[in-house]
Amino acid sequence: MDKPAGRRPTVKDVARLAGVSQGTVSNALSGARAVETETRQRINQAIAALGYVPNLAARRMRTGRTNTIAVMTSMPAAVSAGSSRLGFLMEIAASAAIHALDYNSALVLVPPVADPAVALRHVAMDGAIVIEPQQDDPFLSLLETRGIPVVVIGQPAGTGLPWVDMHYERTADLLLSHLLERGARRIALIIGASSRVSHAVTRECYDRRMSLAGIPPCVIPVPEQEGEDGAYRATRDLLQQVPGIDAIFAPVDAFATGAMRALRDAGRAVPGEVRVVTRYDGLRAREERPSLTAVDLHLEQVAGLATGLLMDLIAGKEIPARTEGPLPSLVIRGSSQG
Amino acid sequence: MDKPAGRRPTVKDVARLAGVSQGTVSNALSGARAVETETRQRINQAIAALGYVPNLAARRMRTGRTNTIAVMTSMPAAVSAGSSRLGFLMEIAASAAIHALDYNSALVLVPPVADPAVALRHVAMDGAIVIEPQQDDPFLSLLETRGIPVVVIGQPAGTGLPWVDMHYERTADLLLSHLLERGARRIALIIGASSRVSHAVTRECYDRRMSLAGIPPCVIPVPEQEGEDGAYRATRDLLQQVPGIDAIFAPVDAFATGAMRALRDAGRAVPGEVRVVTRYDGLRAREERPSLTAVDLHLEQVAGLATGLLMDLIAGKEIPARTEGPLPSLVIRGSSQG
Repeated sequence: MDKPAGRRPTVKDVARLAGVSQGTVSNALSGARAVETETRQRINQAIAALGYVPNLAARRMRTGRTNTIAVMTSMPAAVSAGSSRLGFLMEIAASAAIHALDYNSALVLVPPVADPAVALRHVAMDGAIVIEPQQDDPFLSLLETRGIPVVVIGQPAGTGLPWVDMHYERTADLLLSHLLERGARRIALIIGASSRVSHAVTRECYDRRMSLAGIPPCVIPVPEQEGEDGAYRATRDLLQQVPGIDAIFAPVDAFATGAMRALRDAGRAVPGEVRVVTRYDGLRAREERPSLTAVDLHLEQVAGLATGLLMDLIAGKEIPARTEGPLPSLVIRGSSQG
Repeated sequence: MDKPAGRRPTVKDVARLAGVSQGTVSNALSGARAVETETRQRINQAIAALGYVPNLAARRMRTGRTNTIAVMTSMPAAVSAGSSRLGFLMEIAASAAIHALDYNSALVLVPPVADPAVALRHVAMDGAIVIEPQQDDPFLSLLETRGIPVVVIGQPAGTGLPWVDMHYERTADLLLSHLLERGARRIALIIGASSRVSHAVTRECYDRRMSLAGIPPCVIPVPEQEGEDGAYRATRDLLQQVPGIDAIFAPVDAFATGAMRALRDAGRAVPGEVRVVTRYDGLRAREERPSLTAVDLHLEQVAGLATGLLMDLIAGKEIPARTEGPLPSLVIRGSSQG
């Protein structure tokens, strides 16, 4: 080993051992400029050999950067996380944390609490990934106030912010086509009663498909914060008012499990009498009995794209207003089979 | 609203509006000293009304604190996260992020990559929660080098670090008692081949219980990084060498699903011919068919305890060497029923 005795190793020591300039080491450490993979590896080896630890506080003062990005959503915990706290947000956060490392950054997890001011007060960050914002999203306005670069996952509501397209319309189309192909003729839509763009696009798609198929629309809005219980009550009422329902499309997974519970309590067989489909292929969809037909949104790829875009934005590069995300693919399960 | 026109609101403005001293506002913001709930609420209201944003960089320079804590594990991703990246680590991280807010801190997620130096290089933190470390854990030594306060979830290997007891022995006992009660007479243990304390304690418990029951022990160590595939191969070989096996205890959930796959391929019925149990009641256990008998470790409570202890430690308070975690409870599922 090449450790300088008795003093803390510096960038100079790392540069010498790696055979590069101090500027190149700085660039590799800060992520300010791209450094070739092979050079980066040599620098990393030198850092490991020397036991070099960067002075993060000093770097922050010098660069004004914190080398952290945050992931957050304004979706209430009843929807975004659920009882087991494993969901959409956490799946994206885990992938983003791994991708952030490639840019020498750490990921701060902003927990799904109602008040963005409380959630963000102590979080220093260079930029943020905001998941599926609503119209006038409180997190987005707070980030704007602070002048923090943002990339949206999903689709922003007329904000002009850069975003990764998760293909809401294609997702709704996949699920509705599947139900229609399986012979469903009275399809109800249980949808979040908020201004989230995903809800609006899904509803438009539903209206159009029902109209084309000559099926009278049946839309039941449920407030997001009511979660599974809200969808349970809504489905219970629906089954009494429209007894002929033969399919339920509940894009929010917490709503889908609420609907399943109401169907069980009403003695309606799934999928025999009523087929049920949801959007997010998470724990709820997989654990339900029968398990729920859903859509693979390829969240790992989505998180990788968003992280890369955000890093470019932080570095002052031009990024496209809209970036095409991976195409959703249908995952057919017991709740709609046969 | 009471916004001071034309300038950024200060702590002074917040203190005036909340009717408290500037020192009390500082304490509430920094978490340095406890502030009564009612006072804290009044301060939060004033902050919201004024749109006050603390100058985090300045506070950092002043206090030397970053108001972030990190959660990490040295367990390889093949075990700790798995293909869907939802697991033990993420469940604890999600809960810790929510609890950290109570202490005005944000949570940094350290992704499960092999090299702790790479994972931690850019993470500034006041303290860290380390999940189930191994002997000479590389993350623990790096944190020690940096002088960062640590609380361990699980049990540390002779480090003297404070820890939240997750009751490894009781967990193993619960699962083994269950198998014995259901009539299992040839129980194999598939265990991680690392120096993690959880493995050692589980193995001791297994040896003792088998000896008491007069059952010859059958222990199959599998390297952690081989994950599900390693356990698949180990189980395939086991079934050929010890055809009379009627139960498998695989504490690592990725090992349990590997064993299930090998049992399916060998045409052995679960639970009819072989019963299977695992420890962590996560996505893998619940998604398996039949779903796996496991243990509710009450990770949300565990994360809350660890976060509180870490905050006390950061604040310079005395904390106990060992803190009793919630007792595990058995969750009986299809894989061992009947």
